[in-house]
Amino acid sequence: GHPLFRDMTTTIFEKMSMRARELGAINLGQGFPDGPGPHEVLEAAADALLTKSNQYPPMAGLPELRSAIAAHYARHQGLDLIPEEVIVTSGATEALAASLMALVGPGDEVLVLAPLYDAYVPLIERAGGVAKVITLTPPEWRITEDALKAAASERTRLILLNNPTNPTAVVMRDGELALLARFCAARDLIAICDEVWEHVTFDGIGHRPLMAFPGMRERTVKIGSAGKIFSVTGWKVGWMCAAPALAALLGRAHQFLTFTTAPNLQWAVAEGLGKPAEWFAQMRADYQESRDRLAEGLEAAGYVVQPSAATWFLSIDLPASGIDMDDVTFCERIVEEAGVAAIPVSAFYPDGTVTSLVRLCFSKADGVIDAAVDRLARFR
Amino acid sequence: GHPLFRDMTTTIFEKMSMRARELGAINLGQGFPDGPGPHEVLEAAADALLTKSNQYPPMAGLPELRSAIAAHYARHQGLDLIPEEVIVTSGATEALAASLMALVGPGDEVLVLAPLYDAYVPLIERAGGVAKVITLTPPEWRITEDALKAAASERTRLILLNNPTNPTAVVMRDGELALLARFCAARDLIAICDEVWEHVTFDGIGHRPLMAFPGMRERTVKIGSAGKIFSVTGWKVGWMCAAPALAALLGRAHQFLTFTTAPNLQWAVAEGLGKPAEWFAQMRADYQESRDRLAEGLEAAGYVVQPSAATWFLSIDLPASGIDMDDVTFCERIVEEAGVAAIPVSAFYPDGTVTSLVRLCFSKADGVIDAAVDRLARFR
Ligand SMILES: CSCCC(=O)C(=O)O
Ligand SMILES: CSCCC(=O)C(=O)O
Repeated sequence: GHPLFRDMTTTIFEKMSMRARELGAINLGQGFPDGPGPHEVLEAAADALLTKSNQYPPMAGLPELRSAIAAHYARHQGLDLIPEEVIVTSGATEALAASLMALVGPGDEVLVLAPLYDAYVPLIERAGGVAKVITLTPPEWRITEDALKAAASERTRLILLNNPTNPTAVVMRDGELALLARFCAARDLIAICDEVWEHVTFDGIGHRPLMAFPGMRERTVKIGSAGKIFSVTGWKVGWMCAAPALAALLGRAHQFLTFTTAPNLQWAVAEGLGKPAEWFAQMRADYQESRDRLAEGLEAAGYVVQPSAATWFLSIDLPASGIDMDDVTFCERIVEEAGVAAIPVSAFYPDGTVTSLVRLCFSKADGVIDAAVDRLARFR
Repeated sequence: GHPLFRDMTTTIFEKMSMRARELGAINLGQGFPDGPGPHEVLEAAADALLTKSNQYPPMAGLPELRSAIAAHYARHQGLDLIPEEVIVTSGATEALAASLMALVGPGDEVLVLAPLYDAYVPLIERAGGVAKVITLTPPEWRITEDALKAAASERTRLILLNNPTNPTAVVMRDGELALLARFCAARDLIAICDEVWEHVTFDGIGHRPLMAFPGMRERTVKIGSAGKIFSVTGWKVGWMCAAPALAALLGRAHQFLTFTTAPNLQWAVAEGLGKPAEWFAQMRADYQESRDRLAEGLEAAGYVVQPSAATWFLSIDLPASGIDMDDVTFCERIVEEAGVAAIPVSAFYPDGTVTSLVRLCFSKADGVIDAAVDRLARFR
């Protein structure tokens, strides 16, 4: 037998961060904020380390965190989850791995939408499944019924979605979500919804979970991430939510992948999720300001950027900016010559379809954004 | 396709801990200490939360921790690892999952020795492999060349070992390790060595890593666990060490299972691993005292216990104690009637071969051990 991971390369995010460290470049590649994270949440984690148990919490997570997640989604997204429907994981990556390992059997086909996160296809294949890629294209990245139908077969069991979407910075429209729900119900598919960006939306656009659409309550795995919500990407505290029958399967896989997650971080996340709505609104407003700062800076320097409705990312449109390079070449050149690391959007396509966009991360201090803009302006 | 994890049940450790919580029983089932863990290590973790980055550390771990692990094994086990040969994981469970996902291909056979940790066989099967179980029996649990040869075929690719061994509390003898090394080299096998108990050995017995035996340096994955070394089982900080060619494969799997592990815990573990030899000796002496306290208490109450040379466990021998029940029945009865949770050793055998032993965890405060002994004495 030939183990499938053998053919995989190191993830583009790690590669670019390594490049940035080597070259001393400003790192707008891998998505992480450069701030410390919310002080009270950090304090809560430090406090729990010294005052609460550091032994195995229950496999599915601290009851207090499972309750806090259910309550949080009731308040913010109108969902009716019970704590037993929530399983805490060591980051959203583990939630993805556990979901796929739990639900994909040999030969099962899984629909995915490209551009997509680079873990999706290797994980589907490692689970024994076959990824059927639906290619979406700029500037609208629109999902159509025809594209779904063309990709599906009678072996299709699941669809794996990321909404809001990295790297396109799109929030799926209600019509698309309704289409996906009808499609899943009609074909009896399970939807794995990677919604790690659910709280990071801009311009008053709200996130609507696919799980809330008709017919989806029992057939959706909803994945979330404390790292994204609280700007602490290193914590690796995530979760997966699903109706009891699905949750039981997810737990089987989770118990053999990591078993459980550091309890002090779980306590802190439980506390953080209870923050008032204004806290989340302020977090969004702060990132929106950073988005605008980067976008305006780049535009002033002659770059054309794509709109960003969510996430910590926006993309430069190379041809529209009058730049005659593909995305990989441009990223190589700017990290070497300008001292700015970015991510080529072609890395999010299994076959590299779209090579005209370069993703930049704006969850950074004003000074860092300004310095990067300056360097990219001089590079032109 | 039928996903393999569907047929798995919840791990016995979680089940017994849930039972203990429900019934208010003393929990000597799942292996965890009831102390808080070493204060300076907890302080270091709390401090790092508030003073260092909480963003993604490098995928393979903080350089400082990778160096500390390599230096620690040089000092304590005479190994010559370089930091690049160390990959930090979210606990030893993730290291096991990543190793098997990285190295097992469809139809590959993996030798395992029973009694074994209940994650092994599901993970091998989920990776597409076939577990070939070599059954060891009390009281010696001795590994023989005949047994290895009988289990191996030309499809055998790996052997997965736990040394020191849970639940038998045995440290593999030099002759057995030499035999395993010869066997792996002759058949070109990779050894995945789950050595999470390497520091928890008693009566002056030291741990010898299989990696140090002739021919094994390039064909061994050595797995360790900070949770076991520092008595903080909830931290879920582990690692896997292997020569560069193997480490590259392990990294591929790790990046898609959890990607990385909370940096503040990594900082604290790096600090802890630098403690002087006396610290580790004292830790061992403390657990040895607890072992003796439990063993003597049980013996005074008429129970016959197996020797324990390592781990946090010892086992009651039911027939030798004049108890005419199988291990599952005994565990059911004592959790219900005596208020003490334990683990039936048959749960460590895929086919339940040995039903005469019941595992108890002694990494507990004196008062807890005494209370449990008291309850078990009254149960007789
Ligand atoms: C796991 S590193 C990737 C972080 C991220 O979400 C991104 O940069 O897209
Ligand atoms: C992951 S829970 C199991 C803990 C342990 O090592 C044991 O009890 O054997």
